[in-house]
Order: sequence, then C-alpha cells, then structure tokens
Amino acid sequence: MIRASENNEYYELTSPTSMPKASGFLWNDKMMIHVNCRGYVVAQFMQPEPAKYSYAPNLEAKTFMQPEQPYYAHHPGRFVFVKDEETGEVFSAPYEPVRVSTDHYTFCVGKNDIVWKVEHQGILIEMTLSLPKDEAMELWKVKVKNTSQRKRKLSIYPYFTVGYMSWMNQSGEYKKELQGIVCSAITPYQKYQDYEKIKNLKDKTFLLGDHEPLSWEVNQEAFEGEGGITLPSAIQQNELEKGDSRYEMPVAVFQYKLEMNQDEEKEYRFLFGAAKTEEEIANIRERYFLTKKETGFQDGFSLAQTEYANYVAEGQGCIQIKTPDADFDNFVNTWLPRQMYYHGSTNRLSTDPQTRNYLQDNMGMSYIKPQIARDAFLLALSQQKASGEMPDGIILHKDAELKYINQVPHTDHCVWLPICLSTYLDETNDYTILEEIVPFAGEAEEVATVSEHINRAMYWLINDRDERGLNYINQGDWCDPMNMVGYKGKGVSGWLTTASAYAFLIWADICEKNGQISSSKEFRQQADITNEVINKYLWDGEWYARGITDDNVVFGISKDKEGRIFLNSQGWALLSGAADETKKQSLLATVTEQLESPYGVEMLAPAYTAMREDVGRVTQKHPGSAENGSVYNHAAVFYIYSLYTVGETENAYRLLRKMIPGPDLNDILQRGQLPVFIPNYYRGAYKQIPRTAGRSSHLFNTGTVSWVYRCLIDGLFGIKGQKEGLRINPQLPSDWQEASVKRTFRGAELQIDMKRDETVSKIEVYVNNEMVEDGILKDLNSTEEYHVLVKIPLEG
Amino acid sequence: MIRASENNEYYELTSPTSMPKASGFLWNDKMMIHVNCRGYVVAQFMQPEPAKYSYAPNLEAKTFMQPEQPYYAHHPGRFVFVKDEETGEVFSAPYEPVRVSTDHYTFCVGKNDIVWKVEHQGILIEMTLSLPKDEAMELWKVKVKNTSQRKRKLSIYPYFTVGYMSWMNQSGEYKKELQGIVCSAITPYQKYQDYEKIKNLKDKTFLLGDHEPLSWEVNQEAFEGEGGITLPSAIQQNELEKGDSRYEMPVAVFQYKLEMNQDEEKEYRFLFGAAKTEEEIANIRERYFLTKKETGFQDGFSLAQTEYANYVAEGQGCIQIKTPDADFDNFVNTWLPRQMYYHGSTNRLSTDPQTRNYLQDNMGMSYIKPQIARDAFLLALSQQKASGEMPDGIILHKDAELKYINQVPHTDHCVWLPICLSTYLDETNDYTILEEIVPFAGEAEEVATVSEHINRAMYWLINDRDERGLNYINQGDWCDPMNMVGYKGKGVSGWLTTASAYAFLIWADICEKNGQISSSKEFRQQADITNEVINKYLWDGEWYARGITDDNVVFGISKDKEGRIFLNSQGWALLSGAADETKKQSLLATVTEQLESPYGVEMLAPAYTAMREDVGRVTQKHPGSAENGSVYNHAAVFYIYSLYTVGETENAYRLLRKMIPGPDLNDILQRGQLPVFIPNYYRGAYKQIPRTAGRSSHLFNTGTVSWVYRCLIDGLFGIKGQKEGLRINPQLPSDWQEASVKRTFRGAELQIDMKRDETVSKIEVYVNNEMVEDGILKDLNSTEEYHVLVKIPLEG
Repeated sequence: MIRASENNEYYELTSPTSMPKASGFLWNDKMMIHVNCRGYVVAQFMQPEPAKYSYAPNLEAKTFMQPEQPYYAHHPGRFVFVKDEETGEVFSAPYEPVRVSTDHYTFCVGKNDIVWKVEHQGILIEMTLSLPKDEAMELWKVKVKNTSQRKRKLSIYPYFTVGYMSWMNQSGEYKKELQGIVCSAITPYQKYQDYEKIKNLKDKTFLLGDHEPLSWEVNQEAFEGEGGITLPSAIQQNELEKGDSRYEMPVAVFQYKLEMNQDEEKEYRFLFGAAKTEEEIANIRERYFLTKKETGFQDGFSLAQTEYANYVAEGQGCIQIKTPDADFDNFVNTWLPRQMYYHGSTNRLSTDPQTRNYLQDNMGMSYIKPQIARDAFLLALSQQKASGEMPDGIILHKDAELKYINQVPHTDHCVWLPICLSTYLDETNDYTILEEIVPFAGEAEEVATVSEHINRAMYWLINDRDERGLNYINQGDWCDPMNMVGYKGKGVSGWLTTASAYAFLIWADICEKNGQISSSKEFRQQADITNEVINKYLWDGEWYARGITDDNVVFGISKDKEGRIFLNSQGWALLSGAADETKKQSLLATVTEQLESPYGVEMLAPAYTAMREDVGRVTQKHPGSAENGSVYNHAAVFYIYSLYTVGETENAYRLLRKMIPGPDLNDILQRGQLPVFIPNYYRGAYKQIPRTAGRSSHLFNTGTVSWVYRCLIDGLFGIKGQKEGLRINPQLPSDWQEASVKRTFRGAELQIDMKRDETVSKIEVYVNNEMVEDGILKDLNSTEEYHVLVKIPLEG
Repeated sequence: MIRASENNEYYELTSPTSMPKASGFLWNDKMMIHVNCRGYVVAQFMQPEPAKYSYAPNLEAKTFMQPEQPYYAHHPGRFVFVKDEETGEVFSAPYEPVRVSTDHYTFCVGKNDIVWKVEHQGILIEMTLSLPKDEAMELWKVKVKNTSQRKRKLSIYPYFTVGYMSWMNQSGEYKKELQGIVCSAITPYQKYQDYEKIKNLKDKTFLLGDHEPLSWEVNQEAFEGEGGITLPSAIQQNELEKGDSRYEMPVAVFQYKLEMNQDEEKEYRFLFGAAKTEEEIANIRERYFLTKKETGFQDGFSLAQTEYANYVAEGQGCIQIKTPDADFDNFVNTWLPRQMYYHGSTNRLSTDPQTRNYLQDNMGMSYIKPQIARDAFLLALSQQKASGEMPDGIILHKDAELKYINQVPHTDHCVWLPICLSTYLDETNDYTILEEIVPFAGEAEEVATVSEHINRAMYWLINDRDERGLNYINQGDWCDPMNMVGYKGKGVSGWLTTASAYAFLIWADICEKNGQISSSKEFRQQADITNEVINKYLWDGEWYARGITDDNVVFGISKDKEGRIFLNSQGWALLSGAADETKKQSLLATVTEQLESPYGVEMLAPAYTAMREDVGRVTQKHPGSAENGSVYNHAAVFYIYSLYTVGETENAYRLLRKMIPGPDLNDILQRGQLPVFIPNYYRGAYKQIPRTAGRSSHLFNTGTVSWVYRCLIDGLFGIKGQKEGLRINPQLPSDWQEASVKRTFRGAELQIDMKRDETVSKIEVYVNNEMVEDGILKDLNSTEEYHVLVKIPLEG
C-alpha cells in the first residue's frame, strides 16, 4: 500500500483512498506546488507575495500556508477524464473527480517529479508533473497506453482548474495561435496607489498543449452542465463546445480523440502556469514546445526537466547513511536534505520569514550550501537594532513588510543567533564571518562586527529581564506562544530564560574558540547566573514551569489542570545545564509519563480545552485546536537534541524514530502521510482524543528538519565539526550492530564504518587503519577521501 | 416555468435548471439570507460586522456582498436527502447535491418565507424557510408526505452545511440534552488586543430539531466517504455513525426513519443559526420548541413566523397600483417596496454604508417609515465636516470604521443631501427638519441647523472646483468611478459638475419653500453659472463629455474608441437644465443609438476592453469585467427619472419596463432571475458580448430601487407631494387606457383612477367629483379617504 521504489527515488502509494490526504511537493525559485494523491493541487508563486494561477471556486482569503488543508469537490486540481468512445464509460485520473476505483493506481512522489499511473479496463494513464527551475509553470506529461487486447477508441480530456480568478474581472478563451487556453483576470484593488503594484502582476493563467486539441472548453459551468463535477455533461457529448468565458468562472479543458492499437502509446505534454501577457505565453510556447534546429536546442521541455532534476540534486546533505533501518536510511539520505533544501532555498515562500525560522532554516543550509547560510546570517544581522534586539521577521524583498504574526512582538529572536551560527562554524570553520562588518537597522548608520552584533543580542537578553532575572515574554516567544502572559510588561518566560542561558553558553564557546577569552568568561558566567535563577523560580518539584504571568501566577506546574507541563521548558534545561542529575532524572521520567504518546512527545499536556485568560494562546495553537497539545515536531526535536546532549541515547533514538514517518504501516495510515517529509505537527492530545492523535498536519514548512539533521550529525552518528576537525562520537541505539556514514566535511570525503566490537570498552576511532586517540580527525584535506572505522563497545 | 402565485404572494419557479442562479432573500434586524433555487445559501449576521455560521469549505476572504456569487458543489446550503428504505434510491431536495430530475419541483419566493415543493416517486418534500424578527437564526419546516398509493418506508436526512469554520479551531458534536448538533470555533486572531473583540463573538453553529433523530453525523468527511457530496456513503448505510468532529470540517446531519401510510404527512422543524454559548442554545430551544402551558405561550416557532410576517409587512410602500400590466403591478405592489424596506432597515448589512447609498436608501424610507429617513439624515449630517464636506461613509456602530472603497476619497457625497431630502419633504411636508440643530464632526463641537449644514455642503461643492468652475473628481465620484482622472488634484468630473447644478436647483427650491428667499436666489444663480460652464467645456457636439483628466484630456467624447459616451453625463444635464432643446434632442437620440440594448440602457459604450491609464476604472467596473458597460440600474434609473422630468413619457416607460424583471419569459431566462428584486446591474456590452448581455448580477443591494419608486411617484403616476399638497400629473404610456393607484399621503388615503378620455384636451383632476383646476389636491385630511378621477386626453 505504501512502499519505496526500488531505487529509493520515489515513495509510492497504491491506493487513493487509504490515505486521502497523502501528498508530495515540488518547488523552484519562483513557486511551490503541493500535490495531493487524488489530484488536488495547491500552487503558489511569488510576485513578490504569494499568488495563484489556479484558484478556489470562491474568493479565498490570502493567508500563510495552512496545516490540514481542506479538500472538497471543486478544490483546485489537475485531472484527466478518459472516455471510452465505444461504451461511453468514463473514469478520471488520478482519482478525483469521478472517483472510479480503477484496476491499478500508483502515486509516486519523487524528488524532482511526481507521477501517477492509473490503469482501468485496459487503458493506462501516466501523469507526470515536474517544474522548470525558475519559472512559475508546471510541466505535465500525460501518457496514454492501450494495455487491452484490442483496438480502442478513446477521448481524453485534460482538465486543469482555473477557478474564481477575481470578483472583479475574469475571462478566458482558446487561442489558436498559441494552441492553448488563456484566462485573464485583474487583481482587485481599490486605492489608485495600488494600481502600480497590480498592473505588473502575472494575472493570466495559461494551458498550452503540444498537440492541437479536437475541441476545448473554457467555461466551468458550461463544462459541467447538470452532470456536475463528477460527470461533466460536456464530456458526454461528442465534442466540447469550444466555448469561452466572460466573467464566468474559467476552466481549461482540451479534448483529444485517439484510436489506439494494442500496446500503442501516445504522449501529450502540457504547460500550465502564470504569465502577464500573451507575448510572454507565445515565448514560453516557443521555448518549451518548438524545435530550433539552428541552435541545436531540440526539446525545451525535456531540457527543463533535466535542469530541474539538477537543481533539486544540488540539495544534497553532507551524509549518506546505511543502518539496520532501511526506511530510516531512505528518509535521511533522500527526503530530509530535500526538505531542508526547500526551506533554505524558498524561505517558505515568504518575503518576511519569522526571524527564528529564517535563522534555523539557514542553519540547515550550513550542511548543503554554507555560502547561502552565511549570507542569510549577515542579512538578518543587518536588520538588528542597535539595541541588540532582533526584529520579528526578516525582510527579503524591497516591497515586503512585516505581516501576520510578525506584527506581534516576540522576545526570543536573539537566542537563535549563536545557536544557529554555531552549526555554520562547526561545519565550515569559517570564523571570518565573526569579523564581517554589518550595519544595524535604523537611520543612525551604525555598523559593527558580527561578534559585536551578537554580543549586543546577548546583552539585550540579559537586560530584557525583571528584577528576578527572568526574561520578559511580552506577547510571545517561540513555538507555543502564550500571548497574554506578559503583554502588560511584567510576565516572564521560563523557557526563554533557559534558552538565554543556553545561548550564552554557545556564544561563550564560540568566543573562546575565536580567542575572545574575556567575553567567553563573561557569557559563561551569565549562563551560570541564569541557570541559578531558573532553578530558584521555575523548578516545580518534578519539572520546570513554563512561565510566570503579569499577575505573578506561575504556570505549567503540577497544580494546573491543563497545560500542566510544557516540553520546551524541560529539554532546554538539559541544554542550558540548569538541571542537575536529580532534576534531570525527574524531568525525564515526567516527560515520558505525561507527554509521550505512540506518535511522539507532545508539546504540552493536558491539552487546553478552554482559554486561560492570564496565559492566552495565539493562532493555531488555541485551546481545542489541532495543534494544541500536539506532537509539535519543532519542540519535540529540541527535546531529542537535548537527550543526545546529555547522553540519553536510547530515549533519543526512540523519539527521533517516531518523528520520522514510517516504518510502521498503521502509524503511517493514522498519520495519513507518505514518509517524504516531516510535517510541522502530528495531532496530539492522545489521552483526550485518541481517535485523531497522530494525524499529520501535511504542512511541510517547519524548523524541525534542520534540527533533525543536527540530531544525526551531533548526536546519533556523532560526526560533528569542531575548530580542530571532525569529532567522532556516535550514540547508536543498542540494537544496532553497525552503521556506516559517508560524510562530506569541509571538502573531504569520509567513509565512516561503525561497528559493535566486543574487544573495546570505549569508542575507538581509526583513520586509514590508524587509531585516533581523542576521536577528533584533524588536518583533513579537502578533496581527499578517508576511511574511518569506529569500534563501539557492545553496551553504549 | 415562472409564474406569480394566485394571490401574488409568491413568485414561483418550476424547474431548478432553467435558471440555476434564481434566488430569493429574507432578512431581519440581525441577519440576511440569500437563498438559491437549488438549495445553496449565503447567510450573514451582524456582530457588529458581517459574520457567518455556515461557511465555505475553505478559508473565504471577508468582503462586501458580491455580484454573481459563484456556486460550486460544496457551496454552503440546506438540503434534505431522501432515501427509500425499500429500494435504496436517493434524491435530495430541493435539487442539489444529488441533482435528481424530480417529478415535480417548485421554488416559491415569498415576502416572508421561501418554500420548495419537491415531489419524486410519490414522496413530497416541502421545505419552508422563515426567520425570527430579531435573532441570527433560520426557522425551517420540512414536511414529508406520502403521495403514492402504498405504504412507504423512508429515511430523511436534513443536511445543513457548516463548512470550514476556522483554520485555527473547529469541532462539533451532538448534544443529547439539546437534541441538536453544536459546532464550535474560535475566530482567528493574532494580536492580543483583538482577543477582547473575538471573545464575545457568536462562534457556535447549532442545528436543533423538534424530533429526536435516530442518528446523526457531525463530520463532513465521514458523512461523504468515497460516495462524495453527490451520494454520501453514510446515507447508504442503515444508520449514520453518530460521529463527532475534532478540527475536521463540521457538518450537521440528522437521520429520521419514517413509515408512512398513503397520504400520511409528517412535519419536522429545525432551528439553524449562531450562538455564543450552549446556555444560549438551550434557551433558544426552550423558546422555540418547548410548550409553556403556564404562560399560554404555546408555539414559539409559529409565533416567530407570525412576528416575522408582521415585521416584513411593515415595509409597505405608499402606493398600490392597477395597470394593464399585471406583472408590473405585482412587482410594484409587492416586491419593490419590500426591496426598499430591506435597504432602509439593514443598510446593506454594513456598519459604514457609503454616504450616497445611505442617503438614497433612506430617501426610499421616506415612502415607508419617514421617521427612519429623518433620523438617518440627521445622523449623516452629524458626521459632516465643518467645511461642508461629507465623509465617504456613515459610521453606524461605535466599533465601525471606514472600510474598502470608503477609504478612497470621492467628491460627490454632498450633492445627495438636497436631492434625497427633497423626497422626505415632498412626502411629509416636515420642514421642521431644516431647523434641527446638528453638530459637525470633529473636536470643535460646532453645531448648526440642517439648513446651514446643507448650505455648507453646497458651498463646499462651489469651492471644490478648478479655475474653469468644474468640480474636482479626486479619486472618484458616483456610479462609474474613474479613479485616475483626478488623483493628481487637477482632473474634473463633468457629471459631478452637472450634479452640483442639479443639487443647487433642488436646494434653491427647498430654500424658497422654506422662506429663505435670498439663499434660494443665490443657489439658483449658482445653478445657472454651473450650467453655463458645463455647456462651455463639456458639450462635445452631440452629447456631454464625462470629464477632463489631470493632463487636460477630455474623455467620454466622440473621438474616443472606448468609453465614448457615458449615460450619467447625459441624463443629469436634462435634470440640471444645462441642455437646451437642441442639445436635448441630440443627446436623447445618441443615448438611444449608442447605449440602449434589449436589456436596458448601458452606463457607457463602447465597453472598455483595456485600461486607460489616464482615466482608470476601479473595482468591479474595471475593463473586461461584468459591470463594465453594463446596464447599471442605478445609472439607468436616473436617466429614466430625467426623461420623466423633461416629459419624455414613452421613452421613460419603455426603459423603466426593461429594468423590472419580466414579463418577457425569454428576457427573464436570459437574466436568470426571478422578478422579485431589481439587481444592481444587468450585464451589458450588448454589441460586443451579446451572449452574456442581460444577465442579472443577482445582487439586490442597489440604490436603484428608491429611484424607481420616485419614477413612479414623481413621473409615471405623477402623484408627488408638494408643500401645498398632492400634485396629480400622470405620464402614462400612450397604450394604457387606464390605471388606478391607491395612494397613502400624509395620512390620507386616496383612490386615484386614471382614464383616457376623448373629451378632454389636457389632464383634468376631480376629487369627489369636483374638478381641481391646478391638479394640486390641497388641505387633505389625514385619516380621511378621497376618490380622485383623472381624465387624460387620448394623446399624451
């Protein structure tokens, strides 16, 4: 029902109904497309804000990407109706909208394409979606094959939804000279000042075919007739009406009639996307469909597919693993770095990503394209205030502005600077970044080194505190933002105080390695002071409290009925060093007991069922919502990271494995997701609502993925960079007898084989057969290859 | 296929497919509901801004009411599935979503209820919708009757869509104690400041039944299964699953099983609406469904229906007519005052109606409830600036703010003050309103009489002009707002200059009647000056230009290829007196030739196909849109009014008759609308796009209706009030031999019979058999009844 393809290049689903929300996604420099197994699609492109060319059937709100995207009959999608011209029977590929249970069905999600193979009564339809690397356009191949034992007469109808383009203005018609349908709209505006913005938007939607259609329809209502979306009246006719759309809701449908001999195969290609003018569309047609013999430019469509495959292939991680768990390997080798690369190359299709997201997504790019991470850190710091405070979002485009949640002041952004930068330094050893001169935001035109920028960020955290030394929360911090804890200016965040301590520690390490010894001492001391404060005010007996409200009410504690324990407050106390051994054991046991579910570790418990007005819960994490009490993976992965940090190897792997979709089929089915990405959450509240616990959000935008990678590099495989070289210190789960990792590190290639060995009592590292006493591989030459053997004692 | 019911209380449609967008609407003090013949529904209630309790299946944009509302399979609606328990056959009433072509179908739109009668294979389903008078709730009766010759076993499933309540938070469950389904959501917010606003919203949707259901479903996806919306899997089972919804999209479905003897009938009642708490819902249940013997309060549901009928009945106009045209009579007697009353009592469900709309809608209330019109004029004037300038919208609620188009400065609002007030004065003779003391907006706390307020409005118009004496247009004026003509501060509006002249004239008349002779003289002089200016700069040879741009380009003239002639510039020149007899004849001929279509007179021609950047077209009237070049009824009715003003009787009636839906069946079908309201536009661009010309916008919010009434009172029947009394001066079309009007006027009841009479050469008026020389009925006693005979010569 779900399987990896033989070469691990695809994950395949063999039924459209077992996991109706299963999906894959593709992206390029200009767009993102989220494709559901049943044929529904959400595509957005940037101009510069996210826009669409295939719309809902009504006026949709403009909003950020949503979890648990609702589907419904007229949801945007790409389909092919197939009619047997002899019997009149109809089915549709891939499944919607006719919903015929076909003889065979496969939904194959690949790294750079997505393929359906649907066979019914001797007709095979193969639909392949790929993208060009830098245009807002879909490349579709539709292959039709006669697999029956006789000649067949068919009509096929590619049916691409256009939807309600505009409440003001929409129309569409077939253009013979383009061999395609062009639908036009005007983005609504009311203030004349906005006209300058909208007049250059790509408001046209086109569908071009490489074969001239027999007939077409551009009018959704005329196409459907009384047959409706599930059996359009128009395809029950011999030919489509060749209609147009005048303010009526447009659609793009072609009809091709085929007579096919046994085993005969025909291929059609389509381009579907956005453009500003018909000239632009004509140019697209020329580049993708027309052969230019004189330039040797033979097949623009295939060339674009190849270019795109190369584009995606640039998103390789720095490890290739082989472990006893093939599903795990497949995810780590193929899908995890792809998802990281998506984040790093698109910034979640936002022009103002949240600062913490932007830093963490680019932290992940340290493993893929460190130069991009470097540029991103410098850009983020150039928007820091001279006070050290970081803004809520990083502006990526001159016309961008802070939107949505970025208009709500959060106090945690500074902590991410050293935490994310440390990965870049570990991976690259490029300490020159610390000496880069970067301006501060504002009119004063002040500049400083990156070191000084981060010093100021740390001082800002040190100063933005109450008399007890606890960090103000204002209207929120990270991940489980409680928006009413501290809006009056008094409430504090336990987590943020702990995170500050951790940030001070990390920054102290970096300073030390960079020779800034007094700074290092100072921040280490600040970490100690902070940890003391945490233990004084926030330890509740068995775990750490989440915060203290404006009215001095401590919450996230044992006497609370809901929101009794918050995950983030616990793991970070391990990271910051606040928790001594006794506290550590206590909180570990508590997390297991109160927060662990079959689907992972929940972000808080018991889930809130009602608003607590002194605490508040913003946006999607509101009481009663899907995210409330969920296995929020971004929080969960930090907990796992903290477990690796304190050597809780088994515990860490167990929870890590739950986060990665698969291998348990029942789990996957409950999650409703293919193992091709980690979603931002799995539904939680397991004890209260077991029916829905475990379900995937299907939202692949999440800061989780770069931290999963850090868990692998810094924790599980223990192959983390340091100033001197590569430190080998794996923490394999005890039931793994061996594992191997191909590690790319600062230009060198290392083949690292890890094996249990009864002859050793502690980990022993050999490079090219020579033992390395401290386990740190120094003086690695870039471009060189190394063979590393790691002997691991039977226990531990 | 379309017919008035015998008592003219309903308009009936006998097929759900001939006019798939045909609709009716109901409203009360809290809500509005727009009901499509096939079962789709849009309902909005005020708290204070428009909100929903039955949502689209995705996250819809919040916007003002849209023309040509798109429908699609999962559009919100109210349906009843019917399953024959013996054969398993299923159909749905009224038509969607199963779309069975039933044996009988009627969609009956009434003044205070809407009824479907759907009969199929011996089962009659009668669905009746009404409202309470002051709650956000629908009252539904579903009657089931066995009309077959045998006993039947059925299941019926009332299916009320709830939809995607919130991207943050939605759930639903059946509550046994309420005998109903309660779905809960939390309106999304991000800024803690907004929490205070959202926390008191009625975010719950309930469906209560007066019979305990056998089973229920609250989960849309579980209900549909793979059967989908057109044949839900759940109703193919014996019983529904009694499921709940946890963040899943909610729905409200009940199942009732019935065994019915021949001719047996059962009735079910339902309440569907919005509430804040379950206590509130329990209270609703008690009031509507539970019998209270001790208070004699027997049947809250029926009582509410009666109260609502009384509420709607308060919206009587001041005339009841009988003419040779029964359809016309029906519309004028029943539907037209109802639509006026809707406007006057709801202000289009806006908390900040556009100033011109607010004044005109309340002008209509002068004929129904003059006190409301009076209060509205005073409220509007209290928001006037001391400079005389009127704001773009009138704030009706303390939390309201100017939204959408009201944030764009328009320059025409002042002209509507005297124009609308004159109707109130004509109808009531209440000149005391002119002496009311009203404040100006702003901190200065300045106050003045209404007279002075309007003087200042007139002076503002006189002063907001260029050196030629033409009125600046800024970013728009009325009806066909050209947003880029004058945004640089130089462009002028020809129409607005003309409208100012007309406003001066009207105000001069009022001043004269009020004894303010010098003011009267002054404004009459201003009208003359303005008319001269109009003729000097805007007469193009055969018609008047629309305006002159910032760069001094005159537009709306013969050399323009598109937008060559604008209707508003012509008719108003008749009203203002700018056009002399020669110009009048010329522009009348031109309008007929260039703007008249089979569906009415278009607002401009040729329709724009592309943006003209020095002119601009905002919002829905943008080039290529449905409204561009449409028969925009608000503009058309002014032209008709101007024709009556200059005695163009035949022409006027011909165009008036085209505006009112019916009686020609082909016209109605092309318009796609029942003759129960006048829409804001019929599609135009007849010469360019004949296929879609004539189609109704289906948007019943329009300033048209009160002007149609004025055309009847002031023009067609010539029964307009003046200071001295009622002036009788009909302008009947020549093919009418007689007509009679029952006129309520300042408390008196007049039975006015108009007859052609070959013995008279001019109109002669007789009251109680005595001739009235000047045709003005003076000294009418309120509460008294009069019989008036009007003899009209054969010609004219």
